[in-house]
Amino acid sequence: MPRDSRFDILFEPVKIGPVTAPNRFYQVPHCTGMGYQLPQTLATMRGIKAAGGWGVVNTEYCSIHPSSDDVPHPFASLWDEGDVRNMAAMADAVHEHGSLAGTELWYGGIRSSNNLSREVALAPSSFPAAESPWQCAKMDLDDIRRFRGWHRAAALRARQAGLDVVYVYAAHTYILNQFLDRDMNTRTDEYGGTLMQRARLLREVLAETRDAIGDRCAVALRIEVDNEDGGGLDERAELLASLAPLVDLFDVTIADYSQEMGGSRFVKEGSLEPHIAHVRKVTGKPVVSVGRFTSPETMLGQVKRGIVDFIGAARPSIADPFLPRKISEGREDDIRECIGCNICYAHNSSAAAIRCTQNPTMGEEWRRGWHPEQIAVAKQREQVLIVGAGPAGLEAGLMLARRGHEVKIADAGLSAGGRLNWETKLPGLAEWARVRDWRLHQISKLSNIEIFRDSRMAPEDVMDLGIPHVVVATGSRWRLDGRGRSFRAPIASYADARILAPEQVLATPVTGAAVVFDDDHYYLAPAIAEHLARQGAQVTYVTSAGKVAAWSELTAEQHRAHARLLELGVTVIVNALVSGLRPGVAVVSCAYSGATREIAADRVVPVTSRDGDDALCHALKGNGLASLALIGDARAPGLIVHAVYAGHRLAREFGEADVTVRRERPLC
Amino acid sequence: MPRDSRFDILFEPVKIGPVTAPNRFYQVPHCTGMGYQLPQTLATMRGIKAAGGWGVVNTEYCSIHPSSDDVPHPFASLWDEGDVRNMAAMADAVHEHGSLAGTELWYGGIRSSNNLSREVALAPSSFPAAESPWQCAKMDLDDIRRFRGWHRAAALRARQAGLDVVYVYAAHTYILNQFLDRDMNTRTDEYGGTLMQRARLLREVLAETRDAIGDRCAVALRIEVDNEDGGGLDERAELLASLAPLVDLFDVTIADYSQEMGGSRFVKEGSLEPHIAHVRKVTGKPVVSVGRFTSPETMLGQVKRGIVDFIGAARPSIADPFLPRKISEGREDDIRECIGCNICYAHNSSAAAIRCTQNPTMGEEWRRGWHPEQIAVAKQREQVLIVGAGPAGLEAGLMLARRGHEVKIADAGLSAGGRLNWETKLPGLAEWARVRDWRLHQISKLSNIEIFRDSRMAPEDVMDLGIPHVVVATGSRWRLDGRGRSFRAPIASYADARILAPEQVLATPVTGAAVVFDDDHYYLAPAIAEHLARQGAQVTYVTSAGKVAAWSELTAEQHRAHARLLELGVTVIVNALVSGLRPGVAVVSCAYSGATREIAADRVVPVTSRDGDDALCHALKGNGLASLALIGDARAPGLIVHAVYAGHRLAREFGEADVTVRRERPLC
Repeated sequence: MPRDSRFDILFEPVKIGPVTAPNRFYQVPHCTGMGYQLPQTLATMRGIKAAGGWGVVNTEYCSIHPSSDDVPHPFASLWDEGDVRNMAAMADAVHEHGSLAGTELWYGGIRSSNNLSREVALAPSSFPAAESPWQCAKMDLDDIRRFRGWHRAAALRARQAGLDVVYVYAAHTYILNQFLDRDMNTRTDEYGGTLMQRARLLREVLAETRDAIGDRCAVALRIEVDNEDGGGLDERAELLASLAPLVDLFDVTIADYSQEMGGSRFVKEGSLEPHIAHVRKVTGKPVVSVGRFTSPETMLGQVKRGIVDFIGAARPSIADPFLPRKISEGREDDIRECIGCNICYAHNSSAAAIRCTQNPTMGEEWRRGWHPEQIAVAKQREQVLIVGAGPAGLEAGLMLARRGHEVKIADAGLSAGGRLNWETKLPGLAEWARVRDWRLHQISKLSNIEIFRDSRMAPEDVMDLGIPHVVVATGSRWRLDGRGRSFRAPIASYADARILAPEQVLATPVTGAAVVFDDDHYYLAPAIAEHLARQGAQVTYVTSAGKVAAWSELTAEQHRAHARLLELGVTVIVNALVSGLRPGVAVVSCAYSGATREIAADRVVPVTSRDGDDALCHALKGNGLASLALIGDARAPGLIVHAVYAGHRLAREFGEADVTVRRERPLC
Repeated sequence: MPRDSRFDILFEPVKIGPVTAPNRFYQVPHCTGMGYQLPQTLATMRGIKAAGGWGVVNTEYCSIHPSSDDVPHPFASLWDEGDVRNMAAMADAVHEHGSLAGTELWYGGIRSSNNLSREVALAPSSFPAAESPWQCAKMDLDDIRRFRGWHRAAALRARQAGLDVVYVYAAHTYILNQFLDRDMNTRTDEYGGTLMQRARLLREVLAETRDAIGDRCAVALRIEVDNEDGGGLDERAELLASLAPLVDLFDVTIADYSQEMGGSRFVKEGSLEPHIAHVRKVTGKPVVSVGRFTSPETMLGQVKRGIVDFIGAARPSIADPFLPRKISEGREDDIRECIGCNICYAHNSSAAAIRCTQNPTMGEEWRRGWHPEQIAVAKQREQVLIVGAGPAGLEAGLMLARRGHEVKIADAGLSAGGRLNWETKLPGLAEWARVRDWRLHQISKLSNIEIFRDSRMAPEDVMDLGIPHVVVATGSRWRLDGRGRSFRAPIASYADARILAPEQVLATPVTGAAVVFDDDHYYLAPAIAEHLARQGAQVTYVTSAGKVAAWSELTAEQHRAHARLLELGVTVIVNALVSGLRPGVAVVSCAYSGATREIAADRVVPVTSRDGDDALCHALKGNGLASLALIGDARAPGLIVHAVYAGHRLAREFGEADVTVRRERPLC
């Protein structure tokens, strides 16, 4: 289809200092959980972004020197010639598609664990980092001089590797921002004082980077428009203006990372616009910023209104590496929109390669050779029945159909979507329904796949259909007997009419005292507690962890999730278990002492663990089917990302004798 | 010196099935934080253990198949030919010194993150693992059959790599133990039922391993003598006896990992003996077990009393890789005893290579070429003054003296040791004094190093001495103004006579209401709270984390630290800050809502962050010294491990123009 001409402006080339981006789609530096340890994985993934139309593709944070390492978190590095070689592979993969390649030179300062290098971390003052009970050293003037030399040397290595854009990184609490920060920088020498004085090191580094590589590479500056506390916009604007002559591109954000990186549960698309709208005018230089943009209309609006020159994206480019190309080809409806679940970030935070709920090929481009838009047509067309139209079943069906198979999906529900249908009705989770909606829309375009709703399948129904290949994707159910992390055996007193299944919460009016027991530690229990509180129940949230939604520290949502419950008046009890029910009350046990207390409980919602619904699969075994597979939550109750991946993998491997999985590691 | 003949029994060869260990010193499998990603680092480190006299040297847990990966925690693997090659390098390094090399075949089951492989984890039942909100699949009989095949194939690869001992691993909550566990294994097929029935898979795997490689390799079984709840010793003993014909060596432990891996704060040397004393008799096979053994007398006693055939060690072999050789050479007083701080484990838990408070060369054998017992004599003998006899100063002095320099250490205190002198008097921390005592004893053997006590050095005192090289290692002081992780700026109301410095707690009688504010999250604040509670104060422990001593989850001490405070009647307030003082009370703020409350406070001990004592160093700058260095807490307040490392590194690099640091990573 031809491109809507309104969008032409997004495809104009834009000059950035000495280089020119082919269009306005700009993949900002973002973490990948790959870093220097997975160079081929990384290069291939970044190359796919360029193939998908991103005009600028950057690496993640890239350490300039061993005195800044972030182990266990994977980071890129430009410490030596081996790094140059690895980085050149990424640059080549990006250049192959006519895009610009960039890197974000990084020095952690206080936020360097240095668990790899064992160097002393350096910063404007000596403080402990967030995670570790040890402190960095306060830099003296010799340290500052050395740091500038390291930065310059790394910039030269970036140019040597063939990169086009080189960042000076003064955001996200790393060193240059530590110098800008009033509380962190209490220096009395020439690097402390007013904001303009605290910016001295930043100015020096910008000038030296420009001097070293500015002839051939654009110098980008990533910086926040406000101070740590969210104030100081005017003095920051003045600073930005003063730096503009040294900068080819401003990549701007705000200090509140839980907003910039906000999950869709708490933050909506384009939330930075009111904060950064002045930067372009103030600096007179090209500007890029992010906002989890997935709507072409929003992108167009930002450019037309002069807010930004480039549409910055991290998560949307992960969920759909081909987003720009789809707009270019008039296929906006094919965009696989980011749902803002932050599972990508959670895996980087877990020192694992990023993955994506919406895009199951993310991280698998090199390892399994998966392409986000291409899938091999099968040599032989087969008939396949999928039972269950949840995330696993829909993805498997769509991909099998794209491979040319004849697919039928039968679902017991009145509408397709499985768990998504009720989970996304809980507070904050609406955007997650895109997992269902994108797949249903794509399926609707194909003639060789059909969904049958309201079609619960008994084993004999399946056999009667005579379809030789059967995939069971029937999902899971939350356990009601308390079993989970904390209790491996059932709790007898949970056999009580006050126990309310998570799946039934939306359909059940709850008043009085409600207890939510979170032994799961992610989004569901807090979302249920929020729902119940908004319905007017007196809610107590009990968790075996030390915090509300402890696992969502990895998704950058924990603080907001915890604060939200307190705002709503929910009583939060941490490090505790709902160990039993007695008339009128729940028994809450301390996870450390075992001491118990009783709290009022008219309803108790246990969010502990699930049973996969695998009965159909077991009943079908030995019935002579050509193939039978059990996937998704039915096999192993997991996150939505697991279900989509399981469906995708099934389709990729269906009928294939050989499956190759590659691995990167050093060899002796 | 000749060996004390009493210890000869420890140096007898011992047969283990088809192989023979040269002595009774047995490095059990232990984590390294290196795993498959750092093969050369690993091989060199294990080789050093063999050089130091460990007759058997094992790898860490070694995954048999991609469906068991533990990312972010580093694990070894035997998945493919590349792994065989890397493992062979380790075997060769161990064989070079006449020792046996072993590996511990591992399958995590429920405890597989599979964040690398993205395979579904498999276990006897479907539960979430401790860390992640997703579940494994319940294995069906096909899965069990495949698992057995993977195990056999990995055993064959182990033999191919040249290993002598191959473990079947049925402990530490991994898969074979999951099958043994009554609550985890609720199967109704032939793999469930009584303990003997639940042991079916273990029996099959043992038999198949034996069949595959038993001709050339010893089959070791690592197993617990009790059930998950600490009971069932009799039925477990019966099981062990029944398995004995399939096993060449029993490596036995108990289910309570916080005891087996217990830090010295909570668990003393040899604590497993009463639990495992029966195994040798019951099975009639060689037995190894651990107990943080550092005393040759304890080792001798265990063997003579027939408790074990081998002295098992993980941590003691990390703190002193040459422990066996030192006993063999009659140099027991040179043993660098493990202090039981579990910093080794904390770094593996942080996905970083292990390090050791006592042995600064641990993990640096390949990377920096450091040997635990050898250090190059300097080409030129220099005079060096070290100011400060804490961990950094003592280590630097000892190593500089071993290199042949003329060293003087001046300390302001009446006795050498620095922070160790007061910290180790707090409850539980006595063993940590070995850091000081080992170094003082080693220094006492050398004639070219002298310690001057009660010698506070002003800049002019230093210059008057006329010593050309000066190392400042003057330590740090806890801040009293509240600055730290939570507060970057000082809190005005902390300027109050009730504020008590951590350093002064032992010297200050405290009665009434004491508040300890833990913004540090490790051992110090809980130890102070314990001390104050034992002195009779009414103690409230307030922490900005969600748990007591949150960072010590990494050292396997968190649970005991938290429980200890509750046992002592300390009031624990988590997720909160001591945000100020008012007359008679401290103000406690919720970390999430900011809501405040007041608690009685006659004394407040802030454990937040420290100031390095770097004044002397700054005053000496520009005075024409040949060299001037600032190390340890004075430069960057850290853990004791950092101080010792800083001292050691200074001595290694002193006067050296070139320092090589090697790096392992894949290259494109």
